[in-house]
Amino acid sequence: MAPAPTLAERERILLAEVDSHLERALDASTLCGNLREAARYAVLGGGKRLRPVLTLLAAEAAGGRRQDALDAAAALEFIHAFSLVHDDLPALDNDAMRRGRPTLHVQFGEAMAILAGDALMSVAFETAARTPRHSGALVAELAAATTAMINGQVLDTLGGFEASLPVADRLRLIHRQKTGALLRAACRMGAIAVGAPEPTLALLSRWGDCMGLMFQIVDDLIDETQTAEHAGKAVGKDREAGKLTWPGVHGIPAAREEVRKLRTESDALLDPLGADGTALREIAEYLANRTR
Amino acid sequence: MAPAPTLAERERILLAEVDSHLERALDASTLCGNLREAARYAVLGGGKRLRPVLTLLAAEAAGGRRQDALDAAAALEFIHAFSLVHDDLPALDNDAMRRGRPTLHVQFGEAMAILAGDALMSVAFETAARTPRHSGALVAELAAATTAMINGQVLDTLGGFEASLPVADRLRLIHRQKTGALLRAACRMGAIAVGAPEPTLALLSRWGDCMGLMFQIVDDLIDETQTAEHAGKAVGKDREAGKLTWPGVHGIPAAREEVRKLRTESDALLDPLGADGTALREIAEYLANRTR
Repeated sequence: MAPAPTLAERERILLAEVDSHLERALDASTLCGNLREAARYAVLGGGKRLRPVLTLLAAEAAGGRRQDALDAAAALEFIHAFSLVHDDLPALDNDAMRRGRPTLHVQFGEAMAILAGDALMSVAFETAARTPRHSGALVAELAAATTAMINGQVLDTLGGFEASLPVADRLRLIHRQKTGALLRAACRMGAIAVGAPEPTLALLSRWGDCMGLMFQIVDDLIDETQTAEHAGKAVGKDREAGKLTWPGVHGIPAAREEVRKLRTESDALLDPLGADGTALREIAEYLANRTR
Repeated sequence: MAPAPTLAERERILLAEVDSHLERALDASTLCGNLREAARYAVLGGGKRLRPVLTLLAAEAAGGRRQDALDAAAALEFIHAFSLVHDDLPALDNDAMRRGRPTLHVQFGEAMAILAGDALMSVAFETAARTPRHSGALVAELAAATTAMINGQVLDTLGGFEASLPVADRLRLIHRQKTGALLRAACRMGAIAVGAPEPTLALLSRWGDCMGLMFQIVDDLIDETQTAEHAGKAVGKDREAGKLTWPGVHGIPAAREEVRKLRTESDALLDPLGADGTALREIAEYLANRTR
């Protein structure tokens, strides 16, 4: 028997599967030449692929084959890529660098960035609708999460809260919608794609919520404490822009403590899965400790 | 027996059905306060409702009930509304007026216009996915048409054609994608929503193609020949922007002759439907003769 692959090997295999499926899905789309080039620039320029990896691992944790969740995984990454392209625009976060390269509007112009973002959202839904089984439920899940994510971006950038809402609740609402909704949907869509039973879907939903919050608090900590060179993007911008962050509202020690608590919660949630939850436990550990 | 309603009465009933369903779908969405206000401004500010009306009439022409096509109809109008909001942006067509009112970015700012357009696309797919039957096929149809529409906008605004493509072919390609794809999808989705048999779907697809081309040629003629006051929007802009238009490429008389030919083609296509095609014949006549 061949030795079990190491964590690093498994990660490399997963990322290669995701990247080749993303490329295949873009090639299968009907985007015209220059639009396709811009879409490829946005999607294939690196990135952690966290959402699709969560989808594939959730599919396996639910007892299914990750091949059956590849379209769902790619659809989520297209939505994520669209949101980055639009968020980087001058009228929004006005970021010039992303993943160590010029952002799309810097490279291709603002008109193309708006339209390429639109096209990536549309291709995301084409890809989700292509899933042979459960496509209706997958599209509904993806659309609801996308709407929540846009809500979160509006709250984060333009405000619009009830005046009486305390700042800690505003922060939690932004995090849950802007980042949490898509990470939660990533876990749910992996389970849905393989026809997981309701208790497994519920467990993975709660775990996805937990990962969504942890991811964003760690992101806030990176923005607050790392150098731009290490993080690969501009840092300290959230605070300068007056945005609500976990360390900003609760302080850095409390933010680190919250991450530890979520890490413990994740272990407890995954307990009923036994050995099937191993890969998810490893992802939780990686997300708790990442520094970029 | 009550007398049959007149054309104007039937049109009023249809538009009221569409508008109240659009409002219901927006209310059912989870958009936060200021985003919801912007989305309502974009969608409920008037408009011909051509796409949803085509969907409902195609559903009836296919022998179904138009109630079963209301979600599909609303989804198409949300896609249309999103495309107008983004096309009007300063980086694209830079239009300040639409339907006799300030465009969304003038009224709510550019950041909100980008995000509200995104949200309308997302709500469109939520709405299409909500259809009780055939939701998978409806979403696939809507997504493919949306991608084609964005392709068309890229070609129209930024070019990117094969260098060897003759100008008349470029024009037809733009028209087919930018306007035609969504009008064709409107007809197809009406038929799909009511489970129409394949020959009816094929007939309505061809008729939708015919209407798409006719609509855009008439639009080009309006832009060339009407006053802004009459048209309710800026005119002559296409020519000034150096965009390809049917009268610009073929001349005004040839454009008018093409509309007459498409009108005849429409009648021939609808012939097999007999009395079931009456409402579609009336729409074709309206589209051929409209002046705004």
